[in-house]
Amino acid sequence: MEFEELGIGEECGVFGCLAAGSWPTELDVPHVITLGLVGLQHRGQESAGIVTSDGESAHSFKVHKGMGLVNHVFSEDSLKKLYVSNLGIGHTRYSTSGVSVLDNCQPFVVETLHGKIAVAHNGELTNAMRLRRKLMRHGVGLSTSSDSELITQLLAFTPPLEQDDTPDWVARIKNLMNETPTSYSLLMMHKDIIYAVRDPYGNRPLCIGRLVPVGDINGKGKNNAATEGWVVSSESCSFLSIGAEYYREVMPGEIVKISRYDVQTLDIVPRPQGDPAAFCIFEYVYFARPDSIFEGQMVYSVRRRCGQQLAIEAPVEADLVSTVPESATPAALGYAQKCGLPYVEVLCKNRYVGRTFIQPNMRLRQLGVAKKFGVLSDNFKGKRVVLIDDSIVRGNTISPIIKLLRESGAKEVHIRVASPPIKFPCYMGINIPTKEELIANRPEFKDLAGYIGADSVVYLSVEGLVSSVQESIKARQDHENNLKTNKFKSGKIGHCTACLVGVYPVELEW
Amino acid sequence: MEFEELGIGEECGVFGCLAAGSWPTELDVPHVITLGLVGLQHRGQESAGIVTSDGESAHSFKVHKGMGLVNHVFSEDSLKKLYVSNLGIGHTRYSTSGVSVLDNCQPFVVETLHGKIAVAHNGELTNAMRLRRKLMRHGVGLSTSSDSELITQLLAFTPPLEQDDTPDWVARIKNLMNETPTSYSLLMMHKDIIYAVRDPYGNRPLCIGRLVPVGDINGKGKNNAATEGWVVSSESCSFLSIGAEYYREVMPGEIVKISRYDVQTLDIVPRPQGDPAAFCIFEYVYFARPDSIFEGQMVYSVRRRCGQQLAIEAPVEADLVSTVPESATPAALGYAQKCGLPYVEVLCKNRYVGRTFIQPNMRLRQLGVAKKFGVLSDNFKGKRVVLIDDSIVRGNTISPIIKLLRESGAKEVHIRVASPPIKFPCYMGINIPTKEELIANRPEFKDLAGYIGADSVVYLSVEGLVSSVQESIKARQDHENNLKTNKFKSGKIGHCTACLVGVYPVELEW
Amino acid sequence: MEFEELGIGEECGVFGCLAAGSWPTELDVPHVITLGLVGLQHRGQESAGIVTSDGESAHSFKVHKGMGLVNHVFSEDSLKKLYVSNLGIGHTRYSTSGVSVLDNCQPFVVETLHGKIAVAHNGELTNAMRLRRKLMRHGVGLSTSSDSELITQLLAFTPPLEQDDTPDWVARIKNLMNETPTSYSLLMMHKDIIYAVRDPYGNRPLCIGRLVPVGDINGKGKNNAATEGWVVSSESCSFLSIGAEYYREVMPGEIVKISRYDVQTLDIVPRPQGDPAAFCIFEYVYFARPDSIFEGQMVYSVRRRCGQQLAIEAPVEADLVSTVPESATPAALGYAQKCGLPYVEVLCKNRYVGRTFIQPNMRLRQLGVAKKFGVLSDNFKGKRVVLIDDSIVRGNTISPIIKLLRESGAKEVHIRVASPPIKFPCYMGINIPTKEELIANRPEFKDLAGYIGADSVVYLSVEGLVSSVQESIKARQDHENNLKTNKFKSGKIGHCTACLVGVYPVELEW
Amino acid sequence: MEFEELGIGEECGVFGCLAAGSWPTELDVPHVITLGLVGLQHRGQESAGIVTSDGESAHSFKVHKGMGLVNHVFSEDSLKKLYVSNLGIGHTRYSTSGVSVLDNCQPFVVETLHGKIAVAHNGELTNAMRLRRKLMRHGVGLSTSSDSELITQLLAFTPPLEQDDTPDWVARIKNLMNETPTSYSLLMMHKDIIYAVRDPYGNRPLCIGRLVPVGDINGKGKNNAATEGWVVSSESCSFLSIGAEYYREVMPGEIVKISRYDVQTLDIVPRPQGDPAAFCIFEYVYFARPDSIFEGQMVYSVRRRCGQQLAIEAPVEADLVSTVPESATPAALGYAQKCGLPYVEVLCKNRYVGRTFIQPNMRLRQLGVAKKFGVLSDNFKGKRVVLIDDSIVRGNTISPIIKLLRESGAKEVHIRVASPPIKFPCYMGINIPTKEELIANRPEFKDLAGYIGADSVVYLSVEGLVSSVQESIKARQDHENNLKTNKFKSGKIGHCTACLVGVYPVELEW
Repeated sequence: MEFEELGIGEECGVFGCLAAGSWPTELDVPHVITLGLVGLQHRGQESAGIVTSDGESAHSFKVHKGMGLVNHVFSEDSLKKLYVSNLGIGHTRYSTSGVSVLDNCQPFVVETLHGKIAVAHNGELTNAMRLRRKLMRHGVGLSTSSDSELITQLLAFTPPLEQDDTPDWVARIKNLMNETPTSYSLLMMHKDIIYAVRDPYGNRPLCIGRLVPVGDINGKGKNNAATEGWVVSSESCSFLSIGAEYYREVMPGEIVKISRYDVQTLDIVPRPQGDPAAFCIFEYVYFARPDSIFEGQMVYSVRRRCGQQLAIEAPVEADLVSTVPESATPAALGYAQKCGLPYVEVLCKNRYVGRTFIQPNMRLRQLGVAKKFGVLSDNFKGKRVVLIDDSIVRGNTISPIIKLLRESGAKEVHIRVASPPIKFPCYMGINIPTKEELIANRPEFKDLAGYIGADSVVYLSVEGLVSSVQESIKARQDHENNLKTNKFKSGKIGHCTACLVGVYPVELEW
Repeated sequence: MEFEELGIGEECGVFGCLAAGSWPTELDVPHVITLGLVGLQHRGQESAGIVTSDGESAHSFKVHKGMGLVNHVFSEDSLKKLYVSNLGIGHTRYSTSGVSVLDNCQPFVVETLHGKIAVAHNGELTNAMRLRRKLMRHGVGLSTSSDSELITQLLAFTPPLEQDDTPDWVARIKNLMNETPTSYSLLMMHKDIIYAVRDPYGNRPLCIGRLVPVGDINGKGKNNAATEGWVVSSESCSFLSIGAEYYREVMPGEIVKISRYDVQTLDIVPRPQGDPAAFCIFEYVYFARPDSIFEGQMVYSVRRRCGQQLAIEAPVEADLVSTVPESATPAALGYAQKCGLPYVEVLCKNRYVGRTFIQPNMRLRQLGVAKKFGVLSDNFKGKRVVLIDDSIVRGNTISPIIKLLRESGAKEVHIRVASPPIKFPCYMGINIPTKEELIANRPEFKDLAGYIGADSVVYLSVEGLVSSVQESIKARQDHENNLKTNKFKSGKIGHCTACLVGVYPVELEW
Repeated sequence: MEFEELGIGEECGVFGCLAAGSWPTELDVPHVITLGLVGLQHRGQESAGIVTSDGESAHSFKVHKGMGLVNHVFSEDSLKKLYVSNLGIGHTRYSTSGVSVLDNCQPFVVETLHGKIAVAHNGELTNAMRLRRKLMRHGVGLSTSSDSELITQLLAFTPPLEQDDTPDWVARIKNLMNETPTSYSLLMMHKDIIYAVRDPYGNRPLCIGRLVPVGDINGKGKNNAATEGWVVSSESCSFLSIGAEYYREVMPGEIVKISRYDVQTLDIVPRPQGDPAAFCIFEYVYFARPDSIFEGQMVYSVRRRCGQQLAIEAPVEADLVSTVPESATPAALGYAQKCGLPYVEVLCKNRYVGRTFIQPNMRLRQLGVAKKFGVLSDNFKGKRVVLIDDSIVRGNTISPIIKLLRESGAKEVHIRVASPPIKFPCYMGINIPTKEELIANRPEFKDLAGYIGADSVVYLSVEGLVSSVQESIKARQDHENNLKTNKFKSGKIGHCTACLVGVYPVELEW
Repeated sequence: MEFEELGIGEECGVFGCLAAGSWPTELDVPHVITLGLVGLQHRGQESAGIVTSDGESAHSFKVHKGMGLVNHVFSEDSLKKLYVSNLGIGHTRYSTSGVSVLDNCQPFVVETLHGKIAVAHNGELTNAMRLRRKLMRHGVGLSTSSDSELITQLLAFTPPLEQDDTPDWVARIKNLMNETPTSYSLLMMHKDIIYAVRDPYGNRPLCIGRLVPVGDINGKGKNNAATEGWVVSSESCSFLSIGAEYYREVMPGEIVKISRYDVQTLDIVPRPQGDPAAFCIFEYVYFARPDSIFEGQMVYSVRRRCGQQLAIEAPVEADLVSTVPESATPAALGYAQKCGLPYVEVLCKNRYVGRTFIQPNMRLRQLGVAKKFGVLSDNFKGKRVVLIDDSIVRGNTISPIIKLLRESGAKEVHIRVASPPIKFPCYMGINIPTKEELIANRPEFKDLAGYIGADSVVYLSVEGLVSSVQESIKARQDHENNLKTNKFKSGKIGHCTACLVGVYPVELEW
C-alpha cells in the first residue's frame, strides 16, 4: 500500500551538505544535495528547494525552488544557478491538500541584521498558533502558513543578551527551543555554518553522514581530501547514493554545528524531568525507507520483527504467506519464516498506474485500486492465503484486492496487519485522515473481516509493535551508550504512539 | 521605440476594484481587475498578481500570482480560484534584470494580529535601506528585496497609541508616510476596505474610476445597481475597457478609503513647507498610455505639444515629417502640423519580432533593431526626412534605422527628439541605464549627428518639456480647483525632472 | 481591424534559402529562414516548420516543426538540430478552426525512389477532391487532409517518360501543373536544389531575393562571398530583416530552379488562351504587409490610393479624418490628403489585449472589441469624424467603436471603407466567413449605417479598387517589361475579385 | 534490472476495444483503451496514441497521439476528443534513440478510396527495405520510417481481384501477409470492424479478452449487456485492470475479425512447410509482465522455473539467495526453493531515481546504478550471497551492485543469471546493443566473474531456458488442443532464440 492509498503522509525531508577542507571546494555541493533529496523523495513529493552559500558573504544565498519531484525541479540548468557553493541545505515537501503552493516551499530564507539565514525543517510545532500570535503582537506580519517561516522569524529576533554586532545563533536557537518543545528536526544555514537541531523529544529523525573521497569515474582522486565533507539528512538511506558513510544520529535536544573544520555538539536542551523521548513510531512502520537506520537499527529489521511478532500473536492455518507489494514485504517474509509457511508472490504491481483520471459513473471507476495490481493466479489457485499488509487505515483499499484474489481462485484470504489500528490524529507533522474516516473508529470495525471480505483479519498489538521496535538489544545498548557519550543523562528510550493510543508527548495547545 | 530598446522601464501598475451596494455582488470583481491590469500591462510585463477578499473574514484572502503577461497568468481556471469576492487588488510588475522571481511578485500579503492585509505598490522608497535596517533591528526577518514587503511589515507594526483589539489602519498608514516621503502610490486591502495612498510628492500616478452598470450582452440590467463599484488604477487608460468612468485623481499625500458605501478622503499628509509636488515628468514622455489623464490633461495632448514645441525650437528645411512608430507619433503629428510639412509614414512595424535569439558571430546579429521594421521606401525616396523619436537614451538603436532610410533612398535624415537627454539616475521607481551607458554622458554626444549618421539631431529643451506639460491653462485651472476642493492648500504644481537636471525632490539616503 | 476580428485569413507563407558559392556555407541558413518566416508571420500564426538539407545526400533532411509562432517554435536549441545545412525551406500556417494539428504542419516531406523531397505551399487546389480520389484509386493512402501531401504524392509519381535512375523533377512539376490550374505558390526541395513554382494564374505571390554579404557585427567580412545566397518568399517584406535585396517576382506559371550556381527559369506553363492572370486582389487590401512589393508596386501605395479614390467616390463634410489602427492608416492618410481634411488619431491600441477569455453572462463580455482600444477623446470632442476602416466583413466589430467615439464626444461619425463588400466564398486559399455571416448578404446591409450606428457608411467600389491597384503606370510598364523578358507572351494583367463579384478564374470542381 | 539499464527494449504494445450489443454503446471505449495501454506501458514509454470510430462513417476517425507516458498523453480533456465512439485501437511505443518523433507515433491513419483505416502494430518487418522500394517504385512517397506506414500503404493498395466499390480487406491483409512473413502482431480498424492479425510465425504476442459488465460503483448494472465488449491486446496483463476476462490467444497466422456481433477467424495463413512457430522467447524472459499468459502458461511461472532450472544447472554453497529487484524475483524465489536456501532481500529500490542528470567529471557520476538501490546490510552482513539477475547484457550495471554488497559486508557474492547470454542482433522488433557492446562477445567474457567482481557467475543454458518455457505439460496440451481447434495442422511449438544462437526463423533481407 502506498501512502496515497492510505491517506497518511509525512510532511518533509531535510538534507544539508558542507564541504570540508579548503574552499572553494571541488565537491559538487548542489549535486550532492539534489541526490540526497532524491533519496528522501518518499518523504515528500510536492515541492523541493535548495539554498546554497559560498560561505564568504553573509548576505548572498543562491536559491532554487519549484513544485514537483526533485528530479523535475533540479535540471542541470537550474543546478548551475546554485554554484559556486561550499555549503547548502535542501528540503522536499509532502503534498498536503489545498495549500500546495510555491510560497510554502522550503528552505525559507530571510535577511536579518546579521545577514541571511535559511531554514529547512521537518515536523510541526504543537504550539504554532500561540507563537504566531506572539510574533504578530510584536508587529511581525507573517506571509505564509508554514511553521518554517515561524521558526525563521523567531530566529531573526534578537534575544535580550545579544550585542548588536555579534549574533549569538546558539542563544537564538535555544531561545526557539525553549519556546516550543516539539516537533522539529531542522537545519539552519548562516554564512559558513549549518546548524542541525532536533527537538528535545526527538520526534522527527535527523542524522549525520561523512562524505569520503570516491574519486572520479576512472578512479582518480580517491584520496582527494578536497572532496570530503559532511552531510546531514532526515534519513540515512540518502547517504549511499552520494557515497557518504553513516556517522551518527543527532540526539534529541541536540544542537550540532557543522563547519568546514568539524562537527560539534554545542548544547543539548533537556526535556522536562521524567519525560521519555518520543521518536515517532510510524517512521519505523511506514514512512522511512527500509534501508534507513534509526537508533542503531535498520528499519527493515524492525518491520521483519513486526511480521514475526504478528505470526506469534495471530497465527493462521494456511498454505502460503504473501504481501501487498512492496512495503509489506519485510513483514510478510518475517511472518512466513516464523510460522514456517512458504512465502509466495500473489500480486504484481503496474508501476505506471499513476494518479488515475476520474469520471463519474464510469464503469472503470469501481475497479479502484485493482488497477494497480496484476494477479499471479497460478501461484495461489485453490490455496489458503495469508496476506500481510502494513496497515489498514480507511479500509477502502484492501477489499478490492481480496476480491481480486478470490475471483482468481484463492480458497481463503486471511489479512494480517503489521501495525496497530490508527485511532487518533497526529499534531506533530503527519497527515492522518479525520477521525471519522479512520476505519478503527467506525462501526464497520466490529466486523472488519466481513466488511472487507476477508476470512479473518488481525492487527498487530501496540505492545507487539513497541517491543518489535525496542527489543533489539544491540540497538538499545548502542543507543544508551550514545546517550551517555552525549551526556544526555535523563535519556530514556521512548516512542510516540499518540495516533494509536491517544496519549501525546506534550500537552497540546491551540 | 519601445522601452526594451531604450533600456528604461517603469516599475509597476496597481489596480483595485470594490463592488458597491449589497454583497455578495453580481460584479465580476476578479475579471474586472484582470482587464484593468491588462490596461496597465505597458507598465510591467514580468509578473502579475491578484488578491481578492469576500469582505467578510479578515483572515482569508484568495491569491493568484504568476510570471508573465496578465493574460497568461490569469486563465479562466485561475480566475475561478479568486471567486467569490467583493473586492480585490492587483499588480503588474516590470521585468527588471536579475531578480525576476516569483517571490517579488505582488500584491504582498501578510497576516497580522488583526487579520490579513494585502499591499500593491508602484514606486521606490528613497530611504528603503534605512527602513530595512530599522525593521531588522526590531527582529523582523525580511524574505524578499521588495519595497512592498517593507511597506507591509511597517504597516504590520502596532503604533504606540493603538489599542490591541481595534487596529487603526489610518494611523498606521500615516506612520508609514512619516517614515518615508516618496515614492509610492499604493493600495492596501484589509477585510472589506481598500485604502488608496499617494505619497506627499505625488511622484507616481493614481486615480479613481466609477463602475457604472453596463448591462449584459443583450442590454439587460443597464440599471442594475448590483454591478456598480469603484476602481482605482495607476492610469485611467484601464477604465474604458471595463466600462468605468474617470472619477478623479488621488491627490499627493492623500489617503483615500474605498468602502462599499463611499469613497472618503481620510487625510492628506502634507509635504515639508515650500516643497512643490514632484509628479514624474517621464510618465508624460514615455511610460503612460496616450489616452491616460494626469492632472486634468490627456497624455497624448502633452506629447503633441512637445512635438509642436520641438518644431519651434528646432525647425528644419525638409520635405516630410515622420515617426519612429508607434510612441513618437503624437509628437510627429504635432511637429508636422506646427511647421506645415506633410506627415508621412516611412517605417512599418513587424509586431511578431519578439525577443530575438542571439548567436555570436551571426551575420544576422548586426541587423539589430532593423529586424523590427519594414521600410516604406516609395514614401520617401529622394526626400528630406525629419524623423521624430520620443527619446535617444543610449544611442544604439536609432543608427540602424537611419541607415535603413538612407539605403532606401532618403536624401537627408534629420532627427528631432521630443524629450531632453537623460543624464542622471532615478531612485524613485524607474530603471535607467547606468550613467556610463547614457549617450548624453558620453564623448560621442558632442557629435551625436555624426555618431548616429544623421544630418542633424536636436533634443527638446527641459524648459520646452516643462512648459509643454504645464502650459495647458485648462489643465492648470482644473487642477488648482481640485487642490482647493481637497483643501490641499500648500499645493504647488511641480514635476520631477531629476533624471534630466540631477535635482531630486527629496534628499537621497543610503 | 485585425484578421481575427474580420474572420478572414490567409492560409500560409513560404520561405526558402540556398547558399551560393562553395559549400559548406558560412551562411546561417536555418537562422535566415527563421527570420524570413518571422517576416511572414502575419500570413499564418498556427504552426511553423523548417526542413534543411546539406545538399549532399538525397536521403537525409533535417526537420523541425511545431505549433505556435515562429519565435516560439524555433529556439536556439531547435535551430541547432537544423545544422549543418546549405539550403532549406520553411512554412508558416494560418490558424484555421478545427484541424489545427501538427500533422498538417508543413513543409511536408516524403521519401521517394530518388530520395527525399520537401514541399511547402501557399494556396488551395481548386480540384483537390478529384486529385485525392485519383491518387487513392491508384492505391495511395493519404494521411492528412492537406493539399501539401496531395502535391507531394503527385510529385512522387513517376511520369511514363522518366528513366528509373534519373528523376526528371521538372517533368514531374509540369505534370502536377497540368493536373491542377490553381492556386499554389510552392517550394520544393530535393538534395541541392530548390524549385520555386507559381501557378499559371499567379493567384498567390512569390518572389526572389538576393542575400548580399553584410559582414559581422564589427563590419568584417563585408565582401565575404561565402555569405551570399538566394532567398525566395511569399512576400518581399521578409527580405529587409535578413539583409536581402529584392530581386524579382516569380511569374505566373513559372518554374524556377535555384541552385548554388544560379537562378534559372526552367519553363513557363501557360494559361488557357485568353485567360488573364488572377492575382488575389485581397493581398493588396488586407493580407500583405504594407512594405511588400507586388507587380512592381508597394502595397502601402495601393492602400493610400484606395483611400484617395474613396475620397473621390464618397466625400463627406467633416472636421477630421481618422483610422481604425493600424491597418487602415495608409487609406486614412490618402483620404485625408485628397479631401484636404486634417488627419487626427482618435483611437490608440492596447497591444496586450490578446485572445480574451469568455464567460457567459459576464458584464465585460459586451464591451467586446472596445477592450482593444483606448479613446483619445480630446482629439475629437465636438468634432465630425470620418473614420476609415479597411473593410467591414461581418459588421459586428465597428459598432462598439462608433459607440465609443460618440460617448466620448464625437459629433458625427462617418464610416468609409477602403475596400468593396465581400459577398462570395474563396476557394483559393482564403478563409472567409460563411455567406450567411457576411454582412453584405444580410438584410441589415440595406440600412448599414443605422445598423452599426454611423451617420453614414460607404464602401469603395469594385472599379475603384481595381483601378487603384492597376493605375500605377510605372508598375504596369515594369510589369509588362518583366512579362516580355520572360517570354510570357500571353500575359495579361489581371486580378482575382471572385469574393467581390462571384466570378472565379477557373471552373470550380468538387 | 530495468530495460534501460540493459539496453534492450521491446518496440510496442497494441490494444483494441469494440463494444458489443447495440450502438451507441454505454461502454467507455476510449477510457478502456487508455487503461489497457497503461497495462502495456512496460512495452513502450515513448509515445502513445488512440484512434476511435463511431462505427457509422468510414470517413471520420477521432485521433489523439502524444509523446510520453499514456497517463500523460491522455488527460480527461484529450479523452473527450475521442468520444462518441464504439470501437478503437491504441498503441504505445518504445523509446528508441534518435527518431523519437511524433511522426512515428501510432496508430497510423490513412484515407483510402473506401474510407479511413487505422493500423497499430508491434514487430518489425524483416523485408521492410524491399517493400519500401516496391511502394516507392509504384509512386508512393513515404513520409515516415515506420513499418506501420509501410503496412498501411500496402493495405491501401487494391489487389487485382477487387471490385472498385467493395473493398475486400481480408484479401488485402492476406496479400500483405504474403508479402512479408514476420514479424508483426497488428490491429487494423475500418469503420465498424477491428481486424487482429498475427504473423504466421507468431513472433509477437496478441490475445483477446471479453469485457463483462461490472456495474457502476454502486454495483448497479451488473447485468447491463450494454457494457459488454471485446478487447484485444499484446498481453493479457492489461485485462484485469479493465474488468476483462482472458478469452484466447490469436494464433500464428490467424486473421481475426472482431465486430459488434462476434469474434470470427477469417483465415489462417500457414508458414512454409516444416517451419516451426517462432514466438520470441524473450517475451518470457524480459519483456512481458509476469501476470501475462502466453501459450496457456503464466510468465511468472516460467521465470520461476528458470530459477529452479538454474539451481539445478549451477548450484552454489551459500547462506542466502537474493534478487536484483524487481524483475529477477520470480527466478530468485525459484532458485531459493529448489536449492533449499533462504530467500532474503539485500537491496531496496529508490523508485524516484529517474533519468539522472550527467555532468562530466562529477564525483557522483561513478556511483552509477548504485544510486538506484539502498542496501539492506543487516540482512547479509558476513553472509555468502547468491544474487539472481535476469540477464547480464553489457556487464556494466552488475559490478557496482556487487561492489555495494561487498562494501556492506557480504562475504561472497555469486551471480546466477536466469537467461543465456545474448550474442546476436534481433531484426524482429527488439532493440539490442551492437554486437560489440554485448558482453558475451567481448574478451572480458572469458573471466566474467573477475571482470564484474563476483566470486562466480553462471548463466542459464539455452536448453535450460527452452525447457523451462516448454516443459509445462498442461500448457503444451492446452496449446496443442488450441491448435487443433483452430485447424492449424502444421502447428509445431517453437520459439525464436535467434539472439542467443544466431539462427533466425526466416531468411533476412536487406
